[in-house]
Amino acid sequence: LLSPFHYNRPVTLTLTFADEPIAAALDDASLLAAMARFEAALALASARAGVLPIEDAQVIVRVSDVAHFDAAALARQARNAGTLAIPFVKALTAQVAASSPSAARWVHFGATSQDTIDTALVLCVQPAGRRLLELVARLGDSAAKLTREYAATPMAARTLLQPAAPISFGWKAAVWLSLVADAYAPFAASLEGMRVLQLGGPVGTLAAFGDKAEAVTRLLAEELRLRAVPIAWHGARGGIARLGVEAAILVGAAAKIARDVALLMQAEVAEAFEPGGAGRGGSSSLPHKRNPALSLLALEAAQRAPQLAATLLAELAPEHERGLAQWQSQFFTLRDLLGACGSGLAAMAEALEGLRVDPVAMLANLERTQGLVFSEALANRLSRTLGKPRAHTLVESLCAKAVRETRHLREVFMDNEEARGAVPDDERARLFDYAAQLGDAPRAVARVLACWEAVKAARS
Amino acid sequence: LLSPFHYNRPVTLTLTFADEPIAAALDDASLLAAMARFEAALALASARAGVLPIEDAQVIVRVSDVAHFDAAALARQARNAGTLAIPFVKALTAQVAASSPSAARWVHFGATSQDTIDTALVLCVQPAGRRLLELVARLGDSAAKLTREYAATPMAARTLLQPAAPISFGWKAAVWLSLVADAYAPFAASLEGMRVLQLGGPVGTLAAFGDKAEAVTRLLAEELRLRAVPIAWHGARGGIARLGVEAAILVGAAAKIARDVALLMQAEVAEAFEPGGAGRGGSSSLPHKRNPALSLLALEAAQRAPQLAATLLAELAPEHERGLAQWQSQFFTLRDLLGACGSGLAAMAEALEGLRVDPVAMLANLERTQGLVFSEALANRLSRTLGKPRAHTLVESLCAKAVRETRHLREVFMDNEEARGAVPDDERARLFDYAAQLGDAPRAVARVLACWEAVKAARS
Amino acid sequence: LLSPFHYNRPVTLTLTFADEPIAAALDDASLLAAMARFEAALALASARAGVLPIEDAQVIVRVSDVAHFDAAALARQARNAGTLAIPFVKALTAQVAASSPSAARWVHFGATSQDTIDTALVLCVQPAGRRLLELVARLGDSAAKLTREYAATPMAARTLLQPAAPISFGWKAAVWLSLVADAYAPFAASLEGMRVLQLGGPVGTLAAFGDKAEAVTRLLAEELRLRAVPIAWHGARGGIARLGVEAAILVGAAAKIARDVALLMQAEVAEAFEPGGAGRGGSSSLPHKRNPALSLLALEAAQRAPQLAATLLAELAPEHERGLAQWQSQFFTLRDLLGACGSGLAAMAEALEGLRVDPVAMLANLERTQGLVFSEALANRLSRTLGKPRAHTLVESLCAKAVRETRHLREVFMDNEEARGAVPDDERARLFDYAAQLGDAPRAVARVLACWEAVKAARS
Amino acid sequence: LLSPFHYNRPVTLTLTFADEPIAAALDDASLLAAMARFEAALALASARAGVLPIEDAQVIVRVSDVAHFDAAALARQARNAGTLAIPFVKALTAQVAASSPSAARWVHFGATSQDTIDTALVLCVQPAGRRLLELVARLGDSAAKLTREYAATPMAARTLLQPAAPISFGWKAAVWLSLVADAYAPFAASLEGMRVLQLGGPVGTLAAFGDKAEAVTRLLAEELRLRAVPIAWHGARGGIARLGVEAAILVGAAAKIARDVALLMQAEVAEAFEPGGAGRGGSSSLPHKRNPALSLLALEAAQRAPQLAATLLAELAPEHERGLAQWQSQFFTLRDLLGACGSGLAAMAEALEGLRVDPVAMLANLERTQGLVFSEALANRLSRTLGKPRAHTLVESLCAKAVRETRHLREVFMDNEEARGAVPDDERARLFDYAAQLGDAPRAVARVLACWEAVKAARS
Repeated sequence: LLSPFHYNRPVTLTLTFADEPIAAALDDASLLAAMARFEAALALASARAGVLPIEDAQVIVRVSDVAHFDAAALARQARNAGTLAIPFVKALTAQVAASSPSAARWVHFGATSQDTIDTALVLCVQPAGRRLLELVARLGDSAAKLTREYAATPMAARTLLQPAAPISFGWKAAVWLSLVADAYAPFAASLEGMRVLQLGGPVGTLAAFGDKAEAVTRLLAEELRLRAVPIAWHGARGGIARLGVEAAILVGAAAKIARDVALLMQAEVAEAFEPGGAGRGGSSSLPHKRNPALSLLALEAAQRAPQLAATLLAELAPEHERGLAQWQSQFFTLRDLLGACGSGLAAMAEALEGLRVDPVAMLANLERTQGLVFSEALANRLSRTLGKPRAHTLVESLCAKAVRETRHLREVFMDNEEARGAVPDDERARLFDYAAQLGDAPRAVARVLACWEAVKAARS
Repeated sequence: LLSPFHYNRPVTLTLTFADEPIAAALDDASLLAAMARFEAALALASARAGVLPIEDAQVIVRVSDVAHFDAAALARQARNAGTLAIPFVKALTAQVAASSPSAARWVHFGATSQDTIDTALVLCVQPAGRRLLELVARLGDSAAKLTREYAATPMAARTLLQPAAPISFGWKAAVWLSLVADAYAPFAASLEGMRVLQLGGPVGTLAAFGDKAEAVTRLLAEELRLRAVPIAWHGARGGIARLGVEAAILVGAAAKIARDVALLMQAEVAEAFEPGGAGRGGSSSLPHKRNPALSLLALEAAQRAPQLAATLLAELAPEHERGLAQWQSQFFTLRDLLGACGSGLAAMAEALEGLRVDPVAMLANLERTQGLVFSEALANRLSRTLGKPRAHTLVESLCAKAVRETRHLREVFMDNEEARGAVPDDERARLFDYAAQLGDAPRAVARVLACWEAVKAARS
Repeated sequence: LLSPFHYNRPVTLTLTFADEPIAAALDDASLLAAMARFEAALALASARAGVLPIEDAQVIVRVSDVAHFDAAALARQARNAGTLAIPFVKALTAQVAASSPSAARWVHFGATSQDTIDTALVLCVQPAGRRLLELVARLGDSAAKLTREYAATPMAARTLLQPAAPISFGWKAAVWLSLVADAYAPFAASLEGMRVLQLGGPVGTLAAFGDKAEAVTRLLAEELRLRAVPIAWHGARGGIARLGVEAAILVGAAAKIARDVALLMQAEVAEAFEPGGAGRGGSSSLPHKRNPALSLLALEAAQRAPQLAATLLAELAPEHERGLAQWQSQFFTLRDLLGACGSGLAAMAEALEGLRVDPVAMLANLERTQGLVFSEALANRLSRTLGKPRAHTLVESLCAKAVRETRHLREVFMDNEEARGAVPDDERARLFDYAAQLGDAPRAVARVLACWEAVKAARS
Repeated sequence: LLSPFHYNRPVTLTLTFADEPIAAALDDASLLAAMARFEAALALASARAGVLPIEDAQVIVRVSDVAHFDAAALARQARNAGTLAIPFVKALTAQVAASSPSAARWVHFGATSQDTIDTALVLCVQPAGRRLLELVARLGDSAAKLTREYAATPMAARTLLQPAAPISFGWKAAVWLSLVADAYAPFAASLEGMRVLQLGGPVGTLAAFGDKAEAVTRLLAEELRLRAVPIAWHGARGGIARLGVEAAILVGAAAKIARDVALLMQAEVAEAFEPGGAGRGGSSSLPHKRNPALSLLALEAAQRAPQLAATLLAELAPEHERGLAQWQSQFFTLRDLLGACGSGLAAMAEALEGLRVDPVAMLANLERTQGLVFSEALANRLSRTLGKPRAHTLVESLCAKAVRETRHLREVFMDNEEARGAVPDDERARLFDYAAQLGDAPRAVARVLACWEAVKAARS
């Protein structure tokens, strides 16, 4: 793909963290190739509709396939022109003219710069979006596997960064899975929503095609496997914004998982670990370090994605028929955003696929709370007998005592007559049993897994 | 609605520009009322599921209906507690206890602060969202009316803020309508997506309810007319973000229309005017001024909406089971965002409903271009005979001559032998006829109107 | 202050988390009072400059001091007018007219709505900003105290959320202090930069005052203790943006400290704790919980501040002499932003002033790394003898062995001939001594403390 | 500069719109060269401080000068490592080792990845920032020239996009100049604020250097012409954020000017025009079009800059000693932001230097208002006699009559007995004289020009 294009001012590292296939779908070469593909298909569709001679169209198609572009020169001229499309069309026309001056008359006929750049954006975004959906599926499947595998593995829930009550690690993974399951269809819909041809000509009315406008539009859409829409979307940028935003929501899902993994991987917690492996997570100066390098990628993506999405949301009100400063750079904003999305999703799919889970550490951390994670259960049980205010006060004092004396809450409870007396003998053990305190978790796990199966069924 | 609540530090003007019904749905009183409604319904559902005595639940319901809250005191205590829900539950419990110490044991039983605040958010957002959909429908209908009425009224398209080629004002309004039509269903879906109960208890597992958790959830959802979801969404904030973002896209649609109206209303353009009326658009110092005061509201909303949406997108990765600094203030962010949305939509619905259109001025501005708006048509026609490069160069020189000599392009064309000779006699008039240069516009208008009818049919 | 104003649609809770004095400086009552103060001072200055009779000015001053406003009605009318200032001036004029129709002629004379609203913004922001500086000073002083007190208390540094090498807690606090020290002067400068009068009249030229314009401006600035600037800043919003951004940077400083405190306060780390106290950090359902409720406030502020600042940055390009949709709502954006700033700073000042530090836990966590925190020191020392590649590889294997066998790195090192042989006897102990591995930390601590003293000296 | 580096996945077009010198300062090659320069200077400074043999340092310097890097391979490995610095140091070390295994031991000695990447950021940003200051100076000088030249050229002020009262074009340019003058020093200060060495080693304490840490730091800072700071800023990102924000404020200044120029250039207004010239502002399909292609660039930059700045503001709270997901990509965010800044400033400097101003059109547009621009002057004059309420009402009716009857306000005024009678004969002409209605404008112009001279004097 890359060979036909020449560059001399590369900015490779911008996509440093991007997933390879997405970077490939969105890099400069792919953008220029998509622009060329649009011009070729436009000529072909126009010829089929009777607008221009089929021989000329064939020349345009042939030259577009092998055209060479000097990206640095295009960038320079784009600065003068205000859009990449103007120097691009000029360069393509010159190459067509070298083969056939007659065909060169018809390059870009009836179209406007924005038709070229918007449709090229669409053509690049489709494979990138499909790759993102694959990554989402991988991420979901790996979360589902953890959900099933650890459904009965007790660990401490943490709220506001403090241990709260017992959950299972499978249930925690089910929350992760729910994020992925909820985001899949909306992203897929926003991607399908952007599988649309842009063709309006200079002001959106396709005036150059006269009564052949509908035919050209239909044939071009078919040729590019895009949908035709009721009216040109030169000034209607909601679809791009929605796609960008759904990508930012996917980044958020990856980052939520990454946040949890990085926190669990802290040496003092040590309940779960990203997979290591060649060059992964090492330090340039600390030989022993094992950094959460995959979570890092997802969290890094999440630092940029909301603002990149906001840029697209801030570009929804272009002036009149075609605006002054919006469509001209949206491809680049979307490239950064989808690149970040691929980076985060690929990283967390890999992280969950190879996640090393330590149930022993999970249990040990639970135990280290000295039974305080049972305080809610105890308070609820005592409430039934003593009323909530008294129960809450009593449990608070029991907890304080347990902390002060470094004893388990169960012992402190058993020592306290009022408390012990409020709970029948046969209920006491259950109050301090992790498995008995998971509440609705097993059913929730089953519901989320079923939901994920439904998402997967719907997409195939 | 307001009467039961007391305040002493009002910040009324924050919602200065918000549409009244939306402000009412989202103001402090409504939030506190929704929180009380959640606690009442929770008690009732729990009683029906056998968790607590029905008599106690009835007391909670009765007291919640008439409870009084000191918002300023709650705000002060919320700062200590890190969430509004903690002092709220305390205040409600105290009022229930005054009626029945027994019932007071059960207030908020099994729930966590976030259950209260998230479900209250949902309950407030639903009527606000329905009001937004009404405004969208009004905006769409008014755009549809303009589309039909002015489908054959020629005006100049403007691209990059410069006159380009002829369009009709109806076609321009059809673009506005397409924005509204495209945004309706996604917003409605995001609103339905947020018609969900939040009930998880302290860590999300509903442990306090034991095997009655599913029943309580189902009964509570029914009572509040919300959907139950597979798993608590304490850490899954995508739905809130998506709703906020769709609101920002609606703001964008209103702002796009506002941008165009404000530009058309410039004294030097003077093609369309917002309705005036009592106190609308006047100036504090310039008696003659008629400001685009409605467009102002939509554009003001659009300055804030993208960033408010970005805040929600930046809050997608809370820590572990319940995060440290996201859900605590999302209601306030969403309130500002939906308030802005209502402000913009209501303003532009009113603007389009009363829009004064001046077809004579539109035509006059077209004529002032001295036929330059026909340059593309001419260039395209000449391309067929002379090839694009020659045609483009020739037309550029004709345009320059027309400008230099302040003559109409048609005359300059007729004076130029090469140009005139390239177009048969019977085609020449058509080249300079506005109606003949609308291309696909009439069909596009029909397609967009049909699309809007389909949107309206789907919602009823 | 509040008494003269009436309200009936309060939105109190918007500033739920704001520091009280800042909320007071920026609430609706303060805004309306500042607008009244502007109008009174304008009348007085104009009278002194000979523009209007001093008796009329005195009436305006007197009435402005005791004027009543119905904020809800103003909000409704502001929606019609596009700015709060128009209905405000109308309401004030009516009250002046009730005292003196003659004086009423001169209310707001020569000014425009934006003069009133911008100068009122300035008048409200100044005390809010001074309060923020007090909070910054408190935060800095408390960080300085910790810096001094714990300069020799060893703890593990953590990079990428993993234990790295030893530092002292005082050094860590010095980094916190450096954030505060670096942000103080820029914020103070941005506040002083906004101590500016806005007075331009309808288009900025003060035409109504003729050759008395400079005198009116000078006298008004003196009266309000503001600076006069070379030209009206109706269209120049950089100063507001800069103030907002510096507030966001202060929020960032508070949030950085909060992030660290919340992480240190995790039960599994347990090295430092926010102060508890009445109602602080408790849970609505978990009696034992002690949440990082102060850090929560700073982190919550940091979720909103960057986007609020971005809104101000997005409003830097208003149209022509006075824009359509920027100045109209900037007070409200700045109110939210400064409110967030006060919330975060006050919280972290309180947190650091009462911070409970556990040096024993810090040491224990260091020890739990089994000497791995010395791996860099060891690798560096071995590099000198064995070369970096070999040293790095060797240390990696020693670390792996220590982990595998749950032994201290020192022992593993002593068992390994190559490693041990590469370090002379008398240097070995030093390699595993926390105090010996603090590098430049003691000097850095001294430098930062000196820097903070210099900041404090400069401000007094 | 570029020759030593090899690439195979270029993303050239990301900086499509950036000013060439800034793109050159910030492109991949410059970043890698700056990283190499840091490593070379670190070795040299360390040797001078006695940490390593000077011969080894000299090898490192020599190899760094000619080192080759495969950017695509680095990008791939950076994804694994979580930072570009790790594979970079590895690649450099390998090249040094090929010359001297002994020297290779010392590459990057004592430093951490973030030292390399942060200092390289600083080294790249300094020349980029100086270029930006040159562009600001050019923009200011061109605005100053317009200010002087057109100080007495009357035109209509426009507020809320409607004609208001007369101003001069020179006064309008003085407002532009004030933006530039106000932003110069803060940007320069933020740039100087970032002329700082980053050197802390793995955790910030420079432990590897022992008591030579201060010496190494001082010598390295001297070598790189940077300042040493009291403590490592690994976790203190305020300086980067402030620089980014000041760049966004500069973008705002350029965009404000661009907004006005693009609006003045509308065909229906036609008061000022960007310079044309080769390939500048043409259309791909409309031969007659002259687009505001320079203003486009500034406005495009302003769509992205606030959000890029917000990303930096959102990255102020990294975890502990070195964070998980902030510093790793800030160079790329800053590159986009400074690139946008250079694009906008260079465009508007060029636009103002070649601006074609049409005083005749300005006067004609004033005249087209039929004297309504004098309504404030008239109302103010009548207020003095009739009181403001009566005056305002009367002038409103005179304006309405003028509009209705398409007559000049002066004539309508002269026909109205009440109005005419309220103004002495000798004052009437002055009321309708543009030059007499400029108020304080001439003095404001002088003040702003003096202010700009002071800015220029301060910087030299």
